Amino acid sequence: MTDYSAFFFSTQQASRALAAVAPATTDALLRDLADATVAHTEFLLAENAKDLARMPATDPRYDRLRLTPERLQGMAQDLRNVAGLASPLGAVLSAQELPNGLQLSKVSVPLGVVGIIYEARPNVTFDSLALCLKTGNACVLKGGSDAAASNAALLAVAGPVLTQHGVPLAAVTLLPPERAATEAMLTAVGYVDVVIPRGSQGLIDFVRKNARVPVIETGAGVVHTYFDETGDLGKGSAIVANAKTRRVSVCNSLDCLLINEHRLSDLPALLTPLTEARVQVFADASAYAALTGAYPAELLTEATEAHFGTEFLDYKMAVKTVPDLDAALDHIARHGSRHSEAIVSEDEAHIDQFLRLVDAAAVYANASTAFTDGAQFGLGAEIGISTQKLHARGPMGLAELTSYKWLVRGSGQVRQG
Amino acid sequence: MTDYSAFFFSTQQASRALAAVAPATTDALLRDLADATVAHTEFLLAENAKDLARMPATDPRYDRLRLTPERLQGMAQDLRNVAGLASPLGAVLSAQELPNGLQLSKVSVPLGVVGIIYEARPNVTFDSLALCLKTGNACVLKGGSDAAASNAALLAVAGPVLTQHGVPLAAVTLLPPERAATEAMLTAVGYVDVVIPRGSQGLIDFVRKNARVPVIETGAGVVHTYFDETGDLGKGSAIVANAKTRRVSVCNSLDCLLINEHRLSDLPALLTPLTEARVQVFADASAYAALTGAYPAELLTEATEAHFGTEFLDYKMAVKTVPDLDAALDHIARHGSRHSEAIVSEDEAHIDQFLRLVDAAAVYANASTAFTDGAQFGLGAEIGISTQKLHARGPMGLAELTSYKWLVRGSGQVRQG
Repeated sequence: MTDYSAFFFSTQQASRALAAVAPATTDALLRDLADATVAHTEFLLAENAKDLARMPATDPRYDRLRLTPERLQGMAQDLRNVAGLASPLGAVLSAQELPNGLQLSKVSVPLGVVGIIYEARPNVTFDSLALCLKTGNACVLKGGSDAAASNAALLAVAGPVLTQHGVPLAAVTLLPPERAATEAMLTAVGYVDVVIPRGSQGLIDFVRKNARVPVIETGAGVVHTYFDETGDLGKGSAIVANAKTRRVSVCNSLDCLLINEHRLSDLPALLTPLTEARVQVFADASAYAALTGAYPAELLTEATEAHFGTEFLDYKMAVKTVPDLDAALDHIARHGSRHSEAIVSEDEAHIDQFLRLVDAAAVYANASTAFTDGAQFGLGAEIGISTQKLHARGPMGLAELTSYKWLVRGSGQVRQG
Repeated sequence: MTDYSAFFFSTQQASRALAAVAPATTDALLRDLADATVAHTEFLLAENAKDLARMPATDPRYDRLRLTPERLQGMAQDLRNVAGLASPLGAVLSAQELPNGLQLSKVSVPLGVVGIIYEARPNVTFDSLALCLKTGNACVLKGGSDAAASNAALLAVAGPVLTQHGVPLAAVTLLPPERAATEAMLTAVGYVDVVIPRGSQGLIDFVRKNARVPVIETGAGVVHTYFDETGDLGKGSAIVANAKTRRVSVCNSLDCLLINEHRLSDLPALLTPLTEARVQVFADASAYAALTGAYPAELLTEATEAHFGTEFLDYKMAVKTVPDLDAALDHIARHGSRHSEAIVSEDEAHIDQFLRLVDAAAVYANASTAFTDGAQFGLGAEIGISTQKLHARGPMGLAELTSYKWLVRGSGQVRQG
């Protein structure tokens, strides 16, 4: 069995060394890396071509894997953006003098070593590097084997820039592109402080099953929008169309419309904008009856129970008729994944109830769930969208990549009793 | 194989119902439970006696298992104390209006369902109940089989009080005292939001190995105090004695004194207060030489490498001689468990460096590590001391038993681009 422990040991050593790197140095490093990325466009594209040559162009991952001059410019711009954000480190989260004279404060510090597991997108490599270094964390990166040459090339570009700014190379460690390395990361207790999987539900399930180190689960979103008895049709149709069709492959996209039964007659108008994008609708019996003749027959199917609670990531949407708000809340509690949920309503009491009772990372009234995103929420950058309740919930920015420690200054105090 | 899913399903249902319970109701419930605890003293002691009869009085856990009228009074007082704390729920952690007019806020909410795994102490049952209900969480409790009758009796006392205040009984679920129930809790993905093990390193290792739900690790503390070249002997000897002997069985107790080599001649005076408590000292060669003839010979042993990094939980302490602050920092990085670490020094630059560079939940200058405790830090109550960096670090009070959600109020906004 391969022994990966040297990878984690050296990354942990590097994470200690990062404590001595000033935030301004990190920002300069990221800007220089942006320049280096653009300067090495030819090299990076050539290495990326080696990966592309190993994947059929028909593979849905092909486009995610592909680098272009524009995409490298975009990656460079992302690095500069992170460099421009305020450092989240050293923030005094609380400070007080205790009755015994102890000065107690709570200050933000890096998590330590952050493990990121991802799939075919090479841009995640620099994304992770930037967000981790900005937050004083060393990182262990495990990209997909499909992107092995691209990721190695990106690290080759980054290496000299790290060195030039006095940051140890092991502060950004790329693991070999093999599954055993993932397993080693997930069990590196005492060396890896948190693992963040970025990818498919299958990856997340694998991580959950094998991890002995702390994990932040990201991504999966079974998203509902409830159109209430008093919902405004204009707002509702715009919100449903935006949440469903803006980008179907993202986790905040709409999966199931809940329609109040008193508004079934408005359902065809509510869904009119979806016909343009040819959205396949799986409707329960009442909704199916209401849509028959109004929604294109070739796009309309009767729903089965399996359609509810499904994350489609496609031009597909379920529709469920509910008698009232309570039934909508029950449906969401049973089928939602606690990611993003919305109500369209003009009834303030219903809105308040929905916002209070729905258990999800982001709960909306009269707005599209497409806003669940670090940049949209003003976090400046995003390492992922947490679907768990521990540590961070929803979009995770820089602050969510920090921990804290308690500092206690005394003059000889000892504890009585 | 036994199916425990009904336990977790009903607890989750109860956690939804808790959203409708006002904080004042929870406080009244806790006060009534305090009264009920005292009123049922005879019953609780009789049930506890059944557990005690199954354990030899020589077992070190016997005392932890034992209830007395005074201890029940103490438990009642703890319940009243929690009732008197401010609710951590509904706090607006941030609020802003985005340029597009969306009203975005971040509010504190319960975690949902909290699992607590503990061993022989029955008081943890009401501790957990109080802290979880106060924070709006339902809880699944798994106590040790040694305390089965005591825990069942406590739940029997609590039941009518819960019902009287409209709280579903399943909001506090006691699992059967069998290991398979623990395993079921650790794999109840989607039903249990976090598990907190409270107990021995063996329990924590078992949880880490088997959990597929998020875990907060607590407890284990390998604690150092570094006596610097400029350390004040009076402060140092008081701090070392307090950190080592106040209570040896707790996680913040001192395990290893690091002594600057220039102060070896002061080592006997530094350790003088330890002779009274008959503390066994494992000293490295230099410290051994310095202590020979000064520290009682029957309490002095040469250290082996295994003594460093050991959590003694006993009247035992290692002593290591270091040439300077850097060597002390290295030793702590290698052997500490990131719990509590202290420096005794009159050199402000060294103090600053120590506070900045030591990676631990609580870092002290010129004070005893015995202060690492929720009540001492002013948190009002404590569910445990986290030794991980995710979510909560160090003493965990009420706020650390909450999560948050993002609320977004709009007027029909959809996302562009």
